Amino acid sequence: MAGNTFGHIFAVTSFGESHGPAIGCVVDGCPPGLALSAEDIQKDLDRRKPGTSRHVTQRQESDTVEILSGVFEGKTTGTSIALLIRNEDQRSRDYGNLVDTFRPGHADYTYWQKYGIRDYRGGGRASARETAVRVAAAAIARKWLNEKYGVVIRGYLSQLGPHELPFKSWDAVGQNPFFSADPDAVAKLEAFMDELRKAGDSVGAKITTIAEHVPVGWGAPVYAKLDSDLAAAMMSINAVKAVEVGSGFASVTQRGSEHGDELTPEGFLSNNAGGILGGISTGQDVVVTIGIKPTSSIRIPRKSIDKQGNPVMVETNGRHDPCVGIRATPIAEAMMALVLMDHALLHRAQNADVKTATPKLPGSASK
Amino acid sequence: MAGNTFGHIFAVTSFGESHGPAIGCVVDGCPPGLALSAEDIQKDLDRRKPGTSRHVTQRQESDTVEILSGVFEGKTTGTSIALLIRNEDQRSRDYGNLVDTFRPGHADYTYWQKYGIRDYRGGGRASARETAVRVAAAAIARKWLNEKYGVVIRGYLSQLGPHELPFKSWDAVGQNPFFSADPDAVAKLEAFMDELRKAGDSVGAKITTIAEHVPVGWGAPVYAKLDSDLAAAMMSINAVKAVEVGSGFASVTQRGSEHGDELTPEGFLSNNAGGILGGISTGQDVVVTIGIKPTSSIRIPRKSIDKQGNPVMVETNGRHDPCVGIRATPIAEAMMALVLMDHALLHRAQNADVKTATPKLPGSASK
Amino acid sequence: MAGNTFGHIFAVTSFGESHGPAIGCVVDGCPPGLALSAEDIQKDLDRRKPGTSRHVTQRQESDTVEILSGVFEGKTTGTSIALLIRNEDQRSRDYGNLVDTFRPGHADYTYWQKYGIRDYRGGGRASARETAVRVAAAAIARKWLNEKYGVVIRGYLSQLGPHELPFKSWDAVGQNPFFSADPDAVAKLEAFMDELRKAGDSVGAKITTIAEHVPVGWGAPVYAKLDSDLAAAMMSINAVKAVEVGSGFASVTQRGSEHGDELTPEGFLSNNAGGILGGISTGQDVVVTIGIKPTSSIRIPRKSIDKQGNPVMVETNGRHDPCVGIRATPIAEAMMALVLMDHALLHRAQNADVKTATPKLPGSASK
Amino acid sequence: MAGNTFGHIFAVTSFGESHGPAIGCVVDGCPPGLALSAEDIQKDLDRRKPGTSRHVTQRQESDTVEILSGVFEGKTTGTSIALLIRNEDQRSRDYGNLVDTFRPGHADYTYWQKYGIRDYRGGGRASARETAVRVAAAAIARKWLNEKYGVVIRGYLSQLGPHELPFKSWDAVGQNPFFSADPDAVAKLEAFMDELRKAGDSVGAKITTIAEHVPVGWGAPVYAKLDSDLAAAMMSINAVKAVEVGSGFASVTQRGSEHGDELTPEGFLSNNAGGILGGISTGQDVVVTIGIKPTSSIRIPRKSIDKQGNPVMVETNGRHDPCVGIRATPIAEAMMALVLMDHALLHRAQNADVKTATPKLPGSASK
Repeated sequence: MAGNTFGHIFAVTSFGESHGPAIGCVVDGCPPGLALSAEDIQKDLDRRKPGTSRHVTQRQESDTVEILSGVFEGKTTGTSIALLIRNEDQRSRDYGNLVDTFRPGHADYTYWQKYGIRDYRGGGRASARETAVRVAAAAIARKWLNEKYGVVIRGYLSQLGPHELPFKSWDAVGQNPFFSADPDAVAKLEAFMDELRKAGDSVGAKITTIAEHVPVGWGAPVYAKLDSDLAAAMMSINAVKAVEVGSGFASVTQRGSEHGDELTPEGFLSNNAGGILGGISTGQDVVVTIGIKPTSSIRIPRKSIDKQGNPVMVETNGRHDPCVGIRATPIAEAMMALVLMDHALLHRAQNADVKTATPKLPGSASK
Repeated sequence: MAGNTFGHIFAVTSFGESHGPAIGCVVDGCPPGLALSAEDIQKDLDRRKPGTSRHVTQRQESDTVEILSGVFEGKTTGTSIALLIRNEDQRSRDYGNLVDTFRPGHADYTYWQKYGIRDYRGGGRASARETAVRVAAAAIARKWLNEKYGVVIRGYLSQLGPHELPFKSWDAVGQNPFFSADPDAVAKLEAFMDELRKAGDSVGAKITTIAEHVPVGWGAPVYAKLDSDLAAAMMSINAVKAVEVGSGFASVTQRGSEHGDELTPEGFLSNNAGGILGGISTGQDVVVTIGIKPTSSIRIPRKSIDKQGNPVMVETNGRHDPCVGIRATPIAEAMMALVLMDHALLHRAQNADVKTATPKLPGSASK
Repeated sequence: MAGNTFGHIFAVTSFGESHGPAIGCVVDGCPPGLALSAEDIQKDLDRRKPGTSRHVTQRQESDTVEILSGVFEGKTTGTSIALLIRNEDQRSRDYGNLVDTFRPGHADYTYWQKYGIRDYRGGGRASARETAVRVAAAAIARKWLNEKYGVVIRGYLSQLGPHELPFKSWDAVGQNPFFSADPDAVAKLEAFMDELRKAGDSVGAKITTIAEHVPVGWGAPVYAKLDSDLAAAMMSINAVKAVEVGSGFASVTQRGSEHGDELTPEGFLSNNAGGILGGISTGQDVVVTIGIKPTSSIRIPRKSIDKQGNPVMVETNGRHDPCVGIRATPIAEAMMALVLMDHALLHRAQNADVKTATPKLPGSASK
Repeated sequence: MAGNTFGHIFAVTSFGESHGPAIGCVVDGCPPGLALSAEDIQKDLDRRKPGTSRHVTQRQESDTVEILSGVFEGKTTGTSIALLIRNEDQRSRDYGNLVDTFRPGHADYTYWQKYGIRDYRGGGRASARETAVRVAAAAIARKWLNEKYGVVIRGYLSQLGPHELPFKSWDAVGQNPFFSADPDAVAKLEAFMDELRKAGDSVGAKITTIAEHVPVGWGAPVYAKLDSDLAAAMMSINAVKAVEVGSGFASVTQRGSEHGDELTPEGFLSNNAGGILGGISTGQDVVVTIGIKPTSSIRIPRKSIDKQGNPVMVETNGRHDPCVGIRATPIAEAMMALVLMDHALLHRAQNADVKTATPKLPGSASK
């Protein structure tokens, strides 16, 4: 694979650059008969949209999605679904300083050396703008997973720079610009972000994403493990540097007698596994946490080189998120949805006939 | 894909259960003309082999590999290479207690619910025994990567339970049973493991793996990012719950002015990126750290259920590693090698003609 | 794979229905640095366009292609290239009679039973309109193959119904509406088609496609044979029922002493193999012939059933090609180009380093 | 894909050379719970085995298959199934004359130029010996398809050189060494083959393969059409040069009013389509015919070149089938089985929930 398709059997093929005419994707493998409209997709796109608070990039894009195929009389037909989002805010500014220099922390140097050509406008293909496509494609997956299995996928900002943000309520998440599940932390975060913006600097973040009502049995052994595909999905998001499933790195210091989740007829007694054992879902919540690096585009001058290898100083004065993590929650949810959808279908292919007399443990949605 | 093949163009298809007749794999896509013998593979297998110290499982397996195809007169022919390892120590013991119960922390419950049938002997397909296959396949990749590009891939135990183990020297790694790069810590680790074994408990670990001399330009944007594939590869190893690239989760609290690695004509000034920017190798060391959970098989009794859903107590008295992480270093190296090999070939397919006048930064091996 | 992607490493993902808003595709894996404009693609699309003579459908479509991504400053960037063709002539006519009945020879019954939903307008996804996308994608492949290796891919109509049309000259092909390589046959074909149209019937055809200057060595053993991929590619074209490589079915009655192409220092003495031995190109012309069934939409009434299973009579009064084969030449060329491009890249991945002292036989373009 | 894996979701990865230690494969994606023993596979292998009559190669191989994984207590577990066949008759003869020369009609020249190294013993990887692996893997698919859907796959020799062999009865097929469905033709064929062997020459053949009771709805639009995958599968068999579905090339001279199979409540009135419309099964018999070239290894001297490019004469004195087509019937059946199995599973993945009120036409097995 050449790298722009995600998924095995529910496959998303993505295209588009930050400042080209459009971004979009082709979604292949969606079951037929799912009610689907542009509005179903739009509402997820709107959650990710830039320009919604002073803490994120002020780029103005309506991110209006158009369904070009695969839907007939309001329902999916089982053929490939093309989604198109025109780029609107291709501000015709002077990129002169970026044409020949490589911004630290960005893909400029690596793209240039790999391809020998580079769309320097706004990061080109390496821009996080591409993640709008993932959110759009995943809206289809989320709808199907929810209608068919009751799966609910939600995420929240679990850390912003030094501020750990414990989960308090899902209701809070939609009511602040940070996707914080702790409403009491919002004032603190706003102050922190204001100070950061003033300093011209940026900071990293953690996002935790949870899928509820995933049936027991999704996933596959050895290489197509559910957690392996989730790790790939999450690490493919721009700026993500770390992925944990369940207890993650905390497992390192746990004893086996603490980590291994005990089973009882009433259900598992804990969920250190993050809902996955042996690469297969247990029926508990699937829990994944990602670590996101600080935005690379900052106003503080930094050392770099130009195309000829000469030393230069780079500072970025643009419309950048001082913490890319703030807008990453819908993207992490999207990637989890794409993986679960793919595995839901794979599971049916091979295991549609399996029945066991063993009770599904509570939390284990029936297949 | 049904889940037993890893890689796109250098593809490893694995088979075998812990207590079946054999394990092995088919390696497809190896370039022709590579000198290859069973000994080349055996020496890597021997590094992973059980039974080499009192701190790991006492299972006795010579893990002797046989090359069944794809090599002619000592060289690879470009056709598929089959590797076979017969299982020798299929101790005919009583599995009675495992037939009907699900061990906490293991894949027993999930396999049973997914497949409706389960080879309960030693974990069957879910056993870490399968990782011998990965090490064998990767030996081919490592040899080619080294001969063609000078790539060197090495790992070490960077944490054992609560004991952080900073890197001191590569020489140390091969001289203790823990793959510790700190020779001074060995006594402490031995005492810790002895106490743990006495307690019948287990503990987690961290492994750090580093690839040197990876040329700039390997990887691909969006979904086949080098880090995305590395995350999948690492998370597919049994018991791994977390993956970091470069600074990983530490990036969360870093400022952009600290994290973004500055470039100078003399090279990058730091490597928070772990050698990957925008999913493409920078030419610096590729650095990946994984978190491994404590062994699930312990002597301390634990709650579980049987196939009928009745509560039972489970305790495991077998030949188990009290820390599966101890033997995981060669496996993590193997997975890194498989990913790099795949991307080395993919890069040639699409980018063989690319040349830039821009100097490769020191640390950036030439293509 | 869900069925809308073609190719392994040069991969085309297609979307769109006959009467939806648009058709198009994403082309992934194109090497960077190829000069590419919409015009390069448009000229191939124009060769396939409907409405160019009275012998083909009178549907009016400009088939104007828009490049949405992957090209920057006139050159491919190595990222995915999206191509969009808006549907213009979505004549809002009465499909009433098609909504509930299944046209003989069409995919109506099978789509309905497979998906339970069907875009009945003009055949929906099953329409040959989708082949415009293949021609567009292949224009990129053809340009690269030609610039890099000098590969030239051309086809001609080798039989129209009962009329066999031997090859006379490539020049003739572009100068008649049938892609006939025999200029003297054109009058005969026009008369034949006029009579056919009057009868309200249709007829089949044969197309022969030839690639010149394919280097020796493209292809792969066993399952990814060059001829195997060509057979898949050709059989995926609407209405194709048969594929031959080289002598094809004529090989059945040949003796081995006649069929096996002898080698001499001056080159092969014949090309029964059609340029492929053991799944790998020989360096001779790659020759593939396809058989196309008669158009299923005819004015003669035919028996069928409706959705309730009741007997009905179906006759089609629309803008249909009385011989779909007439416009199939550019499509067959396109599919050959896609396969060759994919194998050109695959070959570089695995075999970039291979050199032999053995002379390439004449006809064997150098790599 | 590097070329040794066939199938998307029921995937067979093959390995082995004619004169290496073994051939075999890994079968991935088999549903769990299928009763499977080595005997189930062996009986299909025995139908393909060499040395069973004077009309085929006298190579002596028991072709004994060993199941190495994926089966537990007599049932498939859903994990990968490895099959191993040791090569026994690796006659240690003098290959001297083949080391440096390229046999006309064989893959010698192309392998050499592609890989720069070649296992010249018996054709190495290019040997038809590899097809034993396909037959073995397909035995699993055939068993599952039959038990689950009642699918029956059978083939026969429909032409031997100039002798057309019309279908008379399935019973006849197993009762002569030619797989002829016409028992009356056997004497004629024996005389023909004896004369051919005396002449030291070879001849081609046609095989027709039919799958009964395939449910309506298997297949996929555009690129993963059932016929497209069948064409690839068949063309991947050694020596196959042509593939037809249903009426195949005869469709070219048919009128639409003759070709398009009419539907009635009692079923289709004909089967020109060969059981596939729009790439999707109709529920009628799936019918595929292949054309096989004459064996390339003959005793008549032929012109060729050696590795240095010098002219040489080649004649082959070995144990060769004078018509490779004679033993190809089980192989064609095998490839059809692999494709149908793959599509059966793909269909369940995407379309498991589809139900229509429209009656399945007779011949359309219920899903």
